[in-house]
Amino acid sequence: MTVTLADVTAAAERIGPYIHRTPVLTSEFLDELTGARLFFKCENLQKAGAFKARGAVNAVFSLPESALDRGVATHSSGNHGAALARAAALRGVRAYIVVPANAKQVKKDAILGYGAEVIECEPTLAAREAMLASVVAKTNAIEVHPYDDPAIIGGQGTAGLELSQQVPDLDALVVPVGGGGLLAGCSLVAAERQLSVYGAEPAGAADGRESLRTGNRVRSHVPDTICDGLLTTLGEQNFEIIRQHVRDILVVDDAAVVEAMKLIWTRMKIVVEPSAAITLAVVLHNPDLFTGKRTGLVLTGGNVDLANLPF
Amino acid sequence: MTVTLADVTAAAERIGPYIHRTPVLTSEFLDELTGARLFFKCENLQKAGAFKARGAVNAVFSLPESALDRGVATHSSGNHGAALARAAALRGVRAYIVVPANAKQVKKDAILGYGAEVIECEPTLAAREAMLASVVAKTNAIEVHPYDDPAIIGGQGTAGLELSQQVPDLDALVVPVGGGGLLAGCSLVAAERQLSVYGAEPAGAADGRESLRTGNRVRSHVPDTICDGLLTTLGEQNFEIIRQHVRDILVVDDAAVVEAMKLIWTRMKIVVEPSAAITLAVVLHNPDLFTGKRTGLVLTGGNVDLANLPF
Repeated sequence: MTVTLADVTAAAERIGPYIHRTPVLTSEFLDELTGARLFFKCENLQKAGAFKARGAVNAVFSLPESALDRGVATHSSGNHGAALARAAALRGVRAYIVVPANAKQVKKDAILGYGAEVIECEPTLAAREAMLASVVAKTNAIEVHPYDDPAIIGGQGTAGLELSQQVPDLDALVVPVGGGGLLAGCSLVAAERQLSVYGAEPAGAADGRESLRTGNRVRSHVPDTICDGLLTTLGEQNFEIIRQHVRDILVVDDAAVVEAMKLIWTRMKIVVEPSAAITLAVVLHNPDLFTGKRTGLVLTGGNVDLANLPF
Repeated sequence: MTVTLADVTAAAERIGPYIHRTPVLTSEFLDELTGARLFFKCENLQKAGAFKARGAVNAVFSLPESALDRGVATHSSGNHGAALARAAALRGVRAYIVVPANAKQVKKDAILGYGAEVIECEPTLAAREAMLASVVAKTNAIEVHPYDDPAIIGGQGTAGLELSQQVPDLDALVVPVGGGGLLAGCSLVAAERQLSVYGAEPAGAADGRESLRTGNRVRSHVPDTICDGLLTTLGEQNFEIIRQHVRDILVVDDAAVVEAMKLIWTRMKIVVEPSAAITLAVVLHNPDLFTGKRTGLVLTGGNVDLANLPF
C-alpha cells in the first residue's frame, strides 16, 4: 500500500481532537547565527512529550470497528509504546506492549498508567520480535509497527502538514531520521509544497544516508550515538518514500548535537532531546544549503532527564 | 496619570513587531489534577525568556522623538535591565543600567550584549537608587522604573490581553505579583472581560496580600522565598489599580512552588522559574476557587539554571 499526501491530510482530520497543535517558535539570535530564518515546530510540547502521539492515534483510530475487540500490540523501549497505550486507552481498546527488561521503570510506569499490559522480555531485537509474535498469536491483537506502517507514516506527517500551514512560505524542512516514519510522512507534504526536505542523522547511526546514497537499504547496523531516538534502521516502506522525495540526509557528530541542544536551551528556553536538537546542528553545519532560506525544523521530543543533561 | 485598558491595547499595537506572541499550552493531566481547565500563557518563551520584554519595549517606543538622544536608565538585578537594554538597542537609544556588584556575570553579559552601559554599585537599594540618580543627573537619561510606571503597566498587561484573545471564554486569571506591574496591567484586561483575577504571591514575600487586606500599601519588607522574581514590594500606582480590580492575592509556601515547578516540567515539558510556577501552586491549593473554571495562568519566565534546579 502506497502512502500519499491524502493519507496525511486524512490523518490530520482524524487525530485533531486527540493531539496538541504544537506551537512554532523562532529566535532572532539563532537566525543571526545560522544566516537562515528558522521555524521550530515544537513536538517536544506534544502530548506525552513527542510526535509519536500523532502516528499512534492515527493507527488506532484507523482500525475498523470490527477489529476493536482484538486490541493492539507492539514492542518498544521508547516513546512509541506509551503513545500506543495512550491512543488505545482513548478508543477503549486493549493494548499489549512488549518491553525489554532493561527499559527504564519510568517508561514502564507510563505505559501501565494508560492501562496497557506490559510484557517484559530479554533486551535483544530477536527476543522482542519473538515475544511480540507470541503475544499476537495468543491475543489476536493487531500489530502496530513503530514506523514501517502506512498509518504511522501518515500520522507523523501531520507534524509537517501543520508546520506548513502555520508557516506557509517555507523553503526547506529538516527532519530527524531514525526508522523514517516522520521523515517519510513530512516528505509527502514537502513534495506537494515544493520545498526541499532534508533528513538529519547522527554520524553514529548514519544508515539512512548510506541507504539513500547507495540505493540499497541498510538492514542492520550497530549504532553509537547520544541520539537515542534515532538508533533504528530505516524501514522498508519509509525508504521507498524517502528516496523519492528527500533531497539528502545530512550527518553531524554527537558533539555538534550537544552544542545545538545547549543553544536551544539558552536561546529558546526549551529543553529538547538530542534526537531533536540534531536538526539545528545540521543547519549550523551546512550554511551553503540554508543561508537565506526559510527553514522549518521539527523538534521531535523533549523527554530528557534534567539531572543528566549532556551539557 | 491613570492607566486604562486603552493603554494596554495601544501597547499591544506598539510592541507587536518586537515581541513574541507566546503560545498557550494545556495539559489533560493537570486539568484532572486540579479539576479546572487550565491555559498556560508561556511568557517563559518570550524574547529574553520573560514577560519583561513587553513593558520595556512599550516604555522605550512610547518616548517622544525629542527625548531619544537623552537615552534611558534604570537599576536592575534581574530581567528588567536586560529587557530595557534590548528595547533601547531596537530603537537606537543609549541605555544606562545600574547593576549591584554581586549580580551574576551572565546578567551583566546579557546587558552588555545589547550594547548598553553597565554601571556597578553596592548591592543595597539605597546605593542603587543613589547611583541611578547620579547617572540620570550626569546624562539626562529618562528613568524607566521596572514596575511603578504607566508604560510598563500597559506593556505587561498585553500578556493578559493576548491570552484573552487566544482563549476568549476564560472565567479566571492567575498572575504572579512582585512589584505588581504585570498583575495591574492584566487586571485592567480582566475587569473589562469580567473575569476574576487573582494575584499569586509567596508566603515569604506576602506584602501584596497584606496591602490588599489592610488597604495600606506595605512599603518595605524582608523577603525570604525561592521566587526570586517576586521579592519587591508593590508599587504605588500598581497598588491603586490592583485594589480596584483584583479579587484577591493568594499565598502559597515555597514547597508548594517547587512541587508545581516539577509538575510543569514532568507534565508539560517546559522549565519555568519558581516565580512562574507559583500560579499553578495557587490553583492546586484553592480548589474552592478554581474547580470547574476555565483559568488562565501567566508563566512569567524561564530563566532557570538547569544545573541548580530545586527539584
